[in-house]
Amino acid sequence: MKTRITELFNIEHPVVAGGMIWCSGWRLAAAVSEGGGLGLIGSGSMEPEILREHIVKCRQATDKPFGVNLPIFSRHSEAFVEIILAERVKIVFTSGGNPERFTKLLKKRGIIVAHVVANRKGALKCVEVGVDAVVAEGFEAGGHNGREETTTMALVPDIRNRIDIPLVAAGGIATGRGMLAAMALGAEGVQIGTRFAASEEASCSEAIKKTIIFSKDGDTDFVLKKLSPVRLWKNEFYQRVKEYETRNASEEELLDLVGFGRTKKGIFEGDLIEGEIEFGQIASVIKDVKPAAEIIKEIVAEYEQMKQKLP
Amino acid sequence: MKTRITELFNIEHPVVAGGMIWCSGWRLAAAVSEGGGLGLIGSGSMEPEILREHIVKCRQATDKPFGVNLPIFSRHSEAFVEIILAERVKIVFTSGGNPERFTKLLKKRGIIVAHVVANRKGALKCVEVGVDAVVAEGFEAGGHNGREETTTMALVPDIRNRIDIPLVAAGGIATGRGMLAAMALGAEGVQIGTRFAASEEASCSEAIKKTIIFSKDGDTDFVLKKLSPVRLWKNEFYQRVKEYETRNASEEELLDLVGFGRTKKGIFEGDLIEGEIEFGQIASVIKDVKPAAEIIKEIVAEYEQMKQKLP
Repeated sequence: MKTRITELFNIEHPVVAGGMIWCSGWRLAAAVSEGGGLGLIGSGSMEPEILREHIVKCRQATDKPFGVNLPIFSRHSEAFVEIILAERVKIVFTSGGNPERFTKLLKKRGIIVAHVVANRKGALKCVEVGVDAVVAEGFEAGGHNGREETTTMALVPDIRNRIDIPLVAAGGIATGRGMLAAMALGAEGVQIGTRFAASEEASCSEAIKKTIIFSKDGDTDFVLKKLSPVRLWKNEFYQRVKEYETRNASEEELLDLVGFGRTKKGIFEGDLIEGEIEFGQIASVIKDVKPAAEIIKEIVAEYEQMKQKLP
Repeated sequence: MKTRITELFNIEHPVVAGGMIWCSGWRLAAAVSEGGGLGLIGSGSMEPEILREHIVKCRQATDKPFGVNLPIFSRHSEAFVEIILAERVKIVFTSGGNPERFTKLLKKRGIIVAHVVANRKGALKCVEVGVDAVVAEGFEAGGHNGREETTTMALVPDIRNRIDIPLVAAGGIATGRGMLAAMALGAEGVQIGTRFAASEEASCSEAIKKTIIFSKDGDTDFVLKKLSPVRLWKNEFYQRVKEYETRNASEEELLDLVGFGRTKKGIFEGDLIEGEIEFGQIASVIKDVKPAAEIIKEIVAEYEQMKQKLP
């Protein structure tokens, strides 16, 4: 399958594995890239020197293209950029912030830059500042997302109508069916998170992988809109967040409740009660934990099969 | 295009126009059916004798199949059923309630029954009580919807994996791209609302049609979760709802704020300030008001065109 996304990143399949905190280390990124997709190292949960280590190890593990996800709002973002430049990373997916901040610098150093957006305005900004590809992420995605709550079905065609640069769809995609739907909406590639969190190579806790494969529709909710809105799995920690929000708790109270280290506790350590656990609505269709390369194979095969079956 | 949905309803294109309050009178239903889709009369905003009038007029206007949307929670639902039976309506789409309530009775009288659901449990219930087709409606849809907030991208494949009866996707679909995406997700037809609200034959106010075609992403929000959750256009009335909800107002206060007749004021009379105005997120891609038959033609043509362009 050839699209502008496979050409831009020089990959076999237009499948990007989202750079997920506590999931997307060098093992997952390398496995995805070896499988013909684009693996991303998720720096969001790393200290700068840890990111360097993952880049080095990823390069040792694969000769194929891989990238780094760079959360612009991170207190480490400047340090991440230095490491990305020093280690000559060739692909960067920025998210959570204004793409103006790093795009020019990264591009000047020959890096291909994609940026994740959740609304039309963000997509137009990407074009303005010279981003190479836009990732349009819908409300159903896990983790942090846009306040407008625009879903993939509504967001992707709206952005497709307004920008000409390569477009990747994200949110609600875990299978060949989802990928086919995304391409129908006007995307030229997909960014997939939750399905790869439930892969053998993801560094999240086994407890999280099990939680994903046993979860059903309605098991996640989009909360913490006063801070940075995020889709959480409905565990006991979530229930407390919900109670606080119902009584209109202040930002300070919410920050206090969330505290520090909760995503590590949840996603990495597998504390299913007190941890902050993030995954997308599409978890409901995921039934097994597999090697990432097999997941890609399965998605691409189902894509072809479903394409033939379209009425 | 042939699917189990075109066969079940004996229609040319697998396109159902949702039975929208204050929009879907006999004119729109007949125009959609004449255009090769399935038109539905939306009884939700009608008195029982008004529904009878619309059924009679619709039958005078078209020889093709059409149906009635029956909101199960309506205080008139028993009266609607009597009229549906007396007037020998052949197709009924039930929504907003338990499909057990009327399915057996309607089926005994030879009526084809579809039921609208927003979650997996609802779809399984449909199969159990003998519904002929399930409409899976995602979070992005306009008007009342499920508390789980599951989007079309996540809901349709989840339900497709679990039921074998004919499946229609709804929510976020207004174009051939959207229809192609829905079919990719496993649907065999689409139910389209907002696009047909912006048709010449829809009985809503011209002000509403203009509001739809000028709206952009982020212009609607899903609120009133303490009452019956609904996606509203963000006007001044909505802002007050939001204020009430932010301070955790009680059900009684919210009921008092909404009062009676607000959807009529908004959708039918076009009061853009004080009216309750409901449409879906996909309004952002709608750019013109057209005859319903032309809308169907355009959707089907774009479907074919986009299908050919799939990578």
